[in-house]
Amino acid sequence: MEYELFYWPTIQGRGEFVRLALEEAGAHYVDVARTPGGMARMTALMDGADHPSFAPPFLKAGDLLVGQTANILLYLGRRHGLAPADEQGQLWVHQIQLTIADLVAEAHDTHHPIASGLYYEDQRPEAKRRAADFIETRIPKFFDWFEGLLGRPAPKDYLTGDRVSYADLSLFQLVEGLRYAFPNALARIDGAYPLVTALRDRVAARPRIAAYLASTRRLPFNEEGIFRRYPELDEQAGHAVGKGG
Amino acid sequence: MEYELFYWPTIQGRGEFVRLALEEAGAHYVDVARTPGGMARMTALMDGADHPSFAPPFLKAGDLLVGQTANILLYLGRRHGLAPADEQGQLWVHQIQLTIADLVAEAHDTHHPIASGLYYEDQRPEAKRRAADFIETRIPKFFDWFEGLLGRPAPKDYLTGDRVSYADLSLFQLVEGLRYAFPNALARIDGAYPLVTALRDRVAARPRIAAYLASTRRLPFNEEGIFRRYPELDEQAGHAVGKGG
Repeated sequence: MEYELFYWPTIQGRGEFVRLALEEAGAHYVDVARTPGGMARMTALMDGADHPSFAPPFLKAGDLLVGQTANILLYLGRRHGLAPADEQGQLWVHQIQLTIADLVAEAHDTHHPIASGLYYEDQRPEAKRRAADFIETRIPKFFDWFEGLLGRPAPKDYLTGDRVSYADLSLFQLVEGLRYAFPNALARIDGAYPLVTALRDRVAARPRIAAYLASTRRLPFNEEGIFRRYPELDEQAGHAVGKGG
Repeated sequence: MEYELFYWPTIQGRGEFVRLALEEAGAHYVDVARTPGGMARMTALMDGADHPSFAPPFLKAGDLLVGQTANILLYLGRRHGLAPADEQGQLWVHQIQLTIADLVAEAHDTHHPIASGLYYEDQRPEAKRRAADFIETRIPKFFDWFEGLLGRPAPKDYLTGDRVSYADLSLFQLVEGLRYAFPNALARIDGAYPLVTALRDRVAARPRIAAYLASTRRLPFNEEGIFRRYPELDEQAGHAVGKGG
């Protein structure tokens, strides 16, 4: 099966969670919008298909068209052993993935708290307030949960035990993205999450992932994706968001 | 199978999407946190279980514990015929559900654009800006997509054809919530989405849903849930959010 992935050609964005799963699976895929004429095909599928996606990414597998990042991973996880074989295990990995997706959406809103259709520069004061709260309360709340999953009842190599799942790949990407966007904040809290950090390193060292990260297929982070480095949103010392203020 | 639903006892919130599916299925369930001692049981499961949820709602079905609203619906949909029997159909319904969930999250952020841990009153100016954009650009963009799904290639009774799915129940709830929170805005655009409106009416008229909506099990909307009526966020005439301003 050769897959076709449809996603914006210049950013990691949400498509990156799918790319990582395809790479770890060793799947054959074309990143369509990065090929000549690919953007036009992507637009056509969104406008006219039987199952049009609201937004990229979406994946074409023969006649099957699947959209929504977590839904694509649900599908790929079953096909490529990136999720447990039993239903209970699949639901659990999907639950973790959807929780990761919640934090990804919040990371996006740190630079676009008012409107995704406006420029960052048009919502900078609001972004500063939202990013401060994101760093102070949201990242720790989610990371506490991830660390707990990895540590209880005893430390695990991966979120569900000794086998990698698509949720592990996504948690790697989340950590990478947050380190890119908020290097000061992440440096401050890194030590509190040794199991999350170890998972990040373990995923990065997997042979197919390491080869992918070193390739030109891996786009660099930039200020058009979900994770953006705006220094004013990541100050050296934490500033309270002004609770009750 | 008797289900136990764990969700905040005083709001519709995200739990309502699960309640509607359980009601349409005619399932036996206990809304645990609305029973004596239920809140303590909910907290204990979040702190100590094998598969702790990051947040409610979650569902207990025998030994199985499932969290994340869309994931719970994925599970219930298969069990109770609220999704197609084939994998392609299940993925499609789940994709629609996840897109509905995206708009639900944006609806929440209209009153909490800066921080979910702060009071609305501490982020009111930002909320006015975000709500204006939500009304002007986000609701129409999503509703255009829903209307298209219902209309192409020919008008359908439900999102996937002639059988109700959990996504239809959720779209009903989304419309109800938006009508509650933004009555002026919804009244202005209602006529542009006849198929969405017809779907809302069709779901409301289903016998089990109608009985549920008339019962005390259906909590009223209020200003602690996702959909909140703050008149200053729903002005009579549309005000531009000030693009590029």
